[in-house]
Amino acid sequence: MMQQRGRLIGLGVGPGDPELITLKALRLLRESPVVGYFVAKGKKGNAFGIIEMHLQETQTLMPLVYPVTTEVLPAPLSYEQVIADFYDTAAEQVAVHLDAGRDVAVICEGDPFFYGSYMYLHDRLAERYDAEVIPGVCSMLGGASVLGAPLVYRNQSLSVLSGVLPHDELKRRLADADAAVIMKLGRNFPKVRQVLGELGLDGRALYVERATMANQKIVPLDEVEPMSSPYFSLIIVPGERWQG
Amino acid sequence: MMQQRGRLIGLGVGPGDPELITLKALRLLRESPVVGYFVAKGKKGNAFGIIEMHLQETQTLMPLVYPVTTEVLPAPLSYEQVIADFYDTAAEQVAVHLDAGRDVAVICEGDPFFYGSYMYLHDRLAERYDAEVIPGVCSMLGGASVLGAPLVYRNQSLSVLSGVLPHDELKRRLADADAAVIMKLGRNFPKVRQVLGELGLDGRALYVERATMANQKIVPLDEVEPMSSPYFSLIIVPGERWQG
Repeated sequence: MMQQRGRLIGLGVGPGDPELITLKALRLLRESPVVGYFVAKGKKGNAFGIIEMHLQETQTLMPLVYPVTTEVLPAPLSYEQVIADFYDTAAEQVAVHLDAGRDVAVICEGDPFFYGSYMYLHDRLAERYDAEVIPGVCSMLGGASVLGAPLVYRNQSLSVLSGVLPHDELKRRLADADAAVIMKLGRNFPKVRQVLGELGLDGRALYVERATMANQKIVPLDEVEPMSSPYFSLIIVPGERWQG
Repeated sequence: MMQQRGRLIGLGVGPGDPELITLKALRLLRESPVVGYFVAKGKKGNAFGIIEMHLQETQTLMPLVYPVTTEVLPAPLSYEQVIADFYDTAAEQVAVHLDAGRDVAVICEGDPFFYGSYMYLHDRLAERYDAEVIPGVCSMLGGASVLGAPLVYRNQSLSVLSGVLPHDELKRRLADADAAVIMKLGRNFPKVRQVLGELGLDGRALYVERATMANQKIVPLDEVEPMSSPYFSLIIVPGERWQG
């Protein structure tokens, strides 16, 4: 008899405030015998912290621990290859449970398909197994809410940009944007602030660290310590208010 | 003695599936003595349909009914002026409750700051009253989830565009996007599909109507009836899969 296979669930848990999880995510979290989560070595992980209080003893936890590495590795190793191998292995670990008929909920901070590590499991497994994705409140909307900043009006375009982009590319895209969100600041912060200044956007831009989390911090852009900006910070350039 | 003023709450209720509301939005909805919602004349409204089951008899409902108009009006009337006047009036209606010390939750489909009508109340009232915004799962992430389409990888940029944009502007912005979401299709659909075809993106683009709602419909782009696309439809051009 064919064993009924388990279902892969990409489960968005929201931007940080544990109350910003959806009813659906919470229900599926509770119903899943296996709960997977990506995490850095020695850390608990933001997504795990959000849902920890809902876990039951009968559930199997499956931490997927990122390899300790940097973006510079001696040949023939490359950062990209090490990470790709890691995702291959993680997918196989998840598949063991799916093959045994157990649903696996992989929790994701924010939304699974919005820059989430879950996407790399999805790409490896969704053709072989049933996969369902539960969307979540993404960090940029959590950020806009705590900054009190309406993001885009009417027919404005929104550009979501990575702080990793080179100076000129970032500048070109920002100059063309009606409204923008810049993610992945961290050590890219000084470059990003420089570009905003060159475009005269620094007065309009708003900055927040760890939006909606317990340790959220809102700081005026010109007062941010350049080297202390965490990865989970973002800058919002809201669209021009519609004066109608 | 000074009357304690009520609080304005912009309450995101998610993209359509009633289970995609957050715990926080549900709690504040239940705690709010007044529940406001924008709605077209003679309609119930999507946001209202999402939360209707949670309402209690003690709560005051405040429909904010859009004026019946078109975008073409005889001078000296303009669509923009009629709408602006409507928002002015709606804000004053909300303010009556706030002045009387009653919290008002204005429910919004998706997220309040992501193209939501709530923004026009917020702009008019947030300087005079305490205002809190509860972010929600936005329609584009609801759309990506049901399409099974990871949206943006790693350092890709995401462009959120309105189908209302003129052909050339839409084409220029789409050509420059790593990944894109096109909202507000409706009668703009034929133009948008034309542009996607010109850019060779029609094979990569995915189309969904009323994502996560009970009457959701996923249709291959080339099979969409050009004039039947509803306003609540969207097109996603997912970022190129990271092959690492």
